[in-house]
Amino acid sequence: MTTDHNRLRHADLPTVRQAIRAGQYTAHTAGLGAGYLQANLAVLPSAYALDFMRFCQRNPKPCPLVGVSDTGNPMMTTMGRDIDIRTDVPAYNIYRDGQLARSVTDITDLWTDDMVAFALGCSFTFENALMQAGIPVWHIDNDTTVPMFRSSIDTVPAGPFWGKMVVSMRAVPNPRVDEVREISRRFPLAHGAPVHVGDPAAIGITDPGAPDWGDPAPIPADHVPVFWACGVTPQVALEAASPPLCITHKPGHMLITDIPEDAETPVLPQHTTQTRQPRRA
Amino acid sequence: MTTDHNRLRHADLPTVRQAIRAGQYTAHTAGLGAGYLQANLAVLPSAYALDFMRFCQRNPKPCPLVGVSDTGNPMMTTMGRDIDIRTDVPAYNIYRDGQLARSVTDITDLWTDDMVAFALGCSFTFENALMQAGIPVWHIDNDTTVPMFRSSIDTVPAGPFWGKMVVSMRAVPNPRVDEVREISRRFPLAHGAPVHVGDPAAIGITDPGAPDWGDPAPIPADHVPVFWACGVTPQVALEAASPPLCITHKPGHMLITDIPEDAETPVLPQHTTQTRQPRRA
Repeated sequence: MTTDHNRLRHADLPTVRQAIRAGQYTAHTAGLGAGYLQANLAVLPSAYALDFMRFCQRNPKPCPLVGVSDTGNPMMTTMGRDIDIRTDVPAYNIYRDGQLARSVTDITDLWTDDMVAFALGCSFTFENALMQAGIPVWHIDNDTTVPMFRSSIDTVPAGPFWGKMVVSMRAVPNPRVDEVREISRRFPLAHGAPVHVGDPAAIGITDPGAPDWGDPAPIPADHVPVFWACGVTPQVALEAASPPLCITHKPGHMLITDIPEDAETPVLPQHTTQTRQPRRA
Repeated sequence: MTTDHNRLRHADLPTVRQAIRAGQYTAHTAGLGAGYLQANLAVLPSAYALDFMRFCQRNPKPCPLVGVSDTGNPMMTTMGRDIDIRTDVPAYNIYRDGQLARSVTDITDLWTDDMVAFALGCSFTFENALMQAGIPVWHIDNDTTVPMFRSSIDTVPAGPFWGKMVVSMRAVPNPRVDEVREISRRFPLAHGAPVHVGDPAAIGITDPGAPDWGDPAPIPADHVPVFWACGVTPQVALEAASPPLCITHKPGHMLITDIPEDAETPVLPQHTTQTRQPRRA
């Protein structure tokens, strides 16, 4: 039984999470859990964890780290009171030796004591802010996937992780480009300010009408193509590193957290006060 | 021969770094290398690195991670073209099993292939922004050290790293508190917005005139005590973890980086383009 996206669109966060956890909802999460931070997921064997964290630290625009699990603990304790990384993402991609092997809706049987889960911020956050400022986002209005391109911009490598930066493109009305830059810069945990404005060729994109991932989107007259660092970048770096096993979310099928989208940090404030140092002990 | 602080105050960044590297300047770095990001330092054996990175990720206000070295590589490549962590900090504290053993001005003989260096953002950045907005910072005007307190706020633990948050206090004129909050929030890599405004007792500080570190500072009439997460916090967590060896900067004696203070990210942009993928190869 699949729960309908339109019905969950107006549901509260616990209802959405429960539907995902029960396997009743396995589709994309755009527009769900309104107001809460959504995140990309990467699960790796612990031997790769330090280098992957360094890769994220060195490439904060494509890979804004918002949460890291303890080794072997599937509960994402800093991002929610009850987030189980094995069940709370609608769909997962399983990579073996850097190659996509299959997609699943539950990774309970794959999780081991040696796993570390990483959550990375995603573009939903700044897209919501743009729309609230009255700036149209074409791919959302037209229910398509944002166009994404492998750019000529190098990431900063860390251990086995390296590769070109993947960028997403949104066409912005000419007079609003500065405003868009300013708004998105306010969200460093959601890719921040654009990495390039104006000339696709300057960052190695020969045909802006033919994206490497996602759907094509028009660049109307009096609009400028604006490029942001994209959360597909770590996927490219993970393919380069080719760990024996790696699990990511299926694109668009994100982890929905308990963190308000406008929180200053992606960490629940009173979390460990309760578990480690009870105030009323 | 010690180079005078006043002389270096007006020197350019390479001159300052060279004086520090040569051991000619071993004092505090406040006001030096104007416009460039300064950072706290922690050097740890690699077995502690993943947990310490998790601790920083979970406590981004006291521990804003701005750089991490490769294991065994003393060059802080993402933060400067020529930063050698063994020589480019004016003074270091050496901890053995969590206890301060001694202070030195060079750690070349202590660095091994197993070390990882971490750089964390510091308050100099937002203090400069406050002063530029015409908000006086008493301890700077009076050439003392900011008062710091062990608060009752718990950090979020990671592995062996845990402890109370250390906070620094600055008295702010009543009508400017909101402005101060707004300005400092703009610097997430320099402790961000205050963690508390107004009542010292609310965060476990019984006597705001008796700081645990630094010098006392007055709270004049019509001023409000404002508390920020402080970079001494990781030192407390490092003492709790008690690694066999740990090296930090000596408080106030910071690493001066090549990163402009107003950069969006603490990573030099074109860095690896040159070393890994030469454009003109």
